[in-house]
Amino acid sequence: MLNDPPGDAPSRHRIGGLAAQSGVPIPTIKYWIREGLLPPPSTKTGRTMAYYDDAYLERVRLVRALREQHFLPVRVIREVLADRAEPITLDEAAAIARLGPRLAEKMRLGPAPMSLTRADLLARALVTDADLTLLEELGLIGTGAPATRCYDAEDLGLLDALGRLEQSGLGRDRFPLTSLGLYIELLGELAHREVHMFTRRTMTGLSDDARLALAAEAVRHSEPLVCALRRLLIRRALASDPSATNHEESP
Amino acid sequence: MLNDPPGDAPSRHRIGGLAAQSGVPIPTIKYWIREGLLPPPSTKTGRTMAYYDDAYLERVRLVRALREQHFLPVRVIREVLADRAEPITLDEAAAIARLGPRLAEKMRLGPAPMSLTRADLLARALVTDADLTLLEELGLIGTGAPATRCYDAEDLGLLDALGRLEQSGLGRDRFPLTSLGLYIELLGELAHREVHMFTRRTMTGLSDDARLALAAEAVRHSEPLVCALRRLLIRRALASDPSATNHEESP
Repeated sequence: MLNDPPGDAPSRHRIGGLAAQSGVPIPTIKYWIREGLLPPPSTKTGRTMAYYDDAYLERVRLVRALREQHFLPVRVIREVLADRAEPITLDEAAAIARLGPRLAEKMRLGPAPMSLTRADLLARALVTDADLTLLEELGLIGTGAPATRCYDAEDLGLLDALGRLEQSGLGRDRFPLTSLGLYIELLGELAHREVHMFTRRTMTGLSDDARLALAAEAVRHSEPLVCALRRLLIRRALASDPSATNHEESP
Repeated sequence: MLNDPPGDAPSRHRIGGLAAQSGVPIPTIKYWIREGLLPPPSTKTGRTMAYYDDAYLERVRLVRALREQHFLPVRVIREVLADRAEPITLDEAAAIARLGPRLAEKMRLGPAPMSLTRADLLARALVTDADLTLLEELGLIGTGAPATRCYDAEDLGLLDALGRLEQSGLGRDRFPLTSLGLYIELLGELAHREVHMFTRRTMTGLSDDARLALAAEAVRHSEPLVCALRRLLIRRALASDPSATNHEESP
């Protein structure tokens, strides 16, 4: 624990404060504790006196979002929380360090290696100079240091995907490339958790080569699922009343 | 502000506590304030005395994650934060309420309406009874109340996508359907923010019908981009050392 200089209040909450700050009624919090979605109180100082810390408050908010915003049932929330809470083990970290770079290489698009320069991309009019710079800053495109950076089929694939979006009518005026930040944030978080989940679930019973082959297949074959879920969740977001916020949950 | 019962400490932090609790060095916090990624202190009580509240601490943590985990450059973080901070306006909520259901309908798969029963799905052996129940609990499949629920091309599309994943070698033992919770959480968050972003960016200059047509095209034509970004971010997650956490940022 890092040192807190004087003047910083330690954060501990009674259950009433927890309810007030999370917007979740006390009986619902107690129900979630019984169901194992929340751990017992952080500190218990008596038979009826218990305190909850800030991490606890965060967890209450997370469970609320999973219930109310994403409509997850209790047993699924339990699994999501378990996956999220378990820190990566040394074995898992070693497996990612060993197999990760090989898999990343295997996932590259295009059969033949190719090497394009920045000038090649600009000459093909796939992207403006300013857009290319932003894509580079985002680390989405190009390999190597700025002076010797080169581009390959993978990069053309991304530019192609951006081009398709633009042709569909969503030009840069309505979809500036800085909007990609949203996708990187959430798909990046998803990617990290997918890698951990896959690593954890394949720790036993498979050779390194078999895991590598399975992972490569899984990434490719999960794309229709990811697209189907996204479509479905967009439809759900469209159909729900955006001004409605507080659903009550009966414990 | 909801009432805090006695015993709950108000949370306010000095800059040192903010740094300690967020893991971000003080000079970096000051740099982020200068760059506009963070607002000025929540409370200023003197020339050198300032306090920061819990929401501020959360924002420091978010900026840190966007920098260190997702490698977003400052100007993109500024945009992500602005999109996130702006509450939905009444006009935007009205637009979603008006166009949302029509767009959700337009996004449905399949040209002809079709109506399958639960027994039809089970007879086709697309899914087990237990899996079907979980998919229903997750709200991913079926339309209508339990007794009269029916299934259509959209539902078959999802089952098909799940089947493809299974055939690729990722069976239910390694990918139990409760794992879908992770995807619903993050793609659901993405869907909400995509809907808001699209609504905001198309508030002017388009008729309702034109917006509807554009949205339908955009959802479909953004799928290659979503898949390309996910692949890229998985490669990035694979290549980064999962045991490394603290990168220093020079202000």
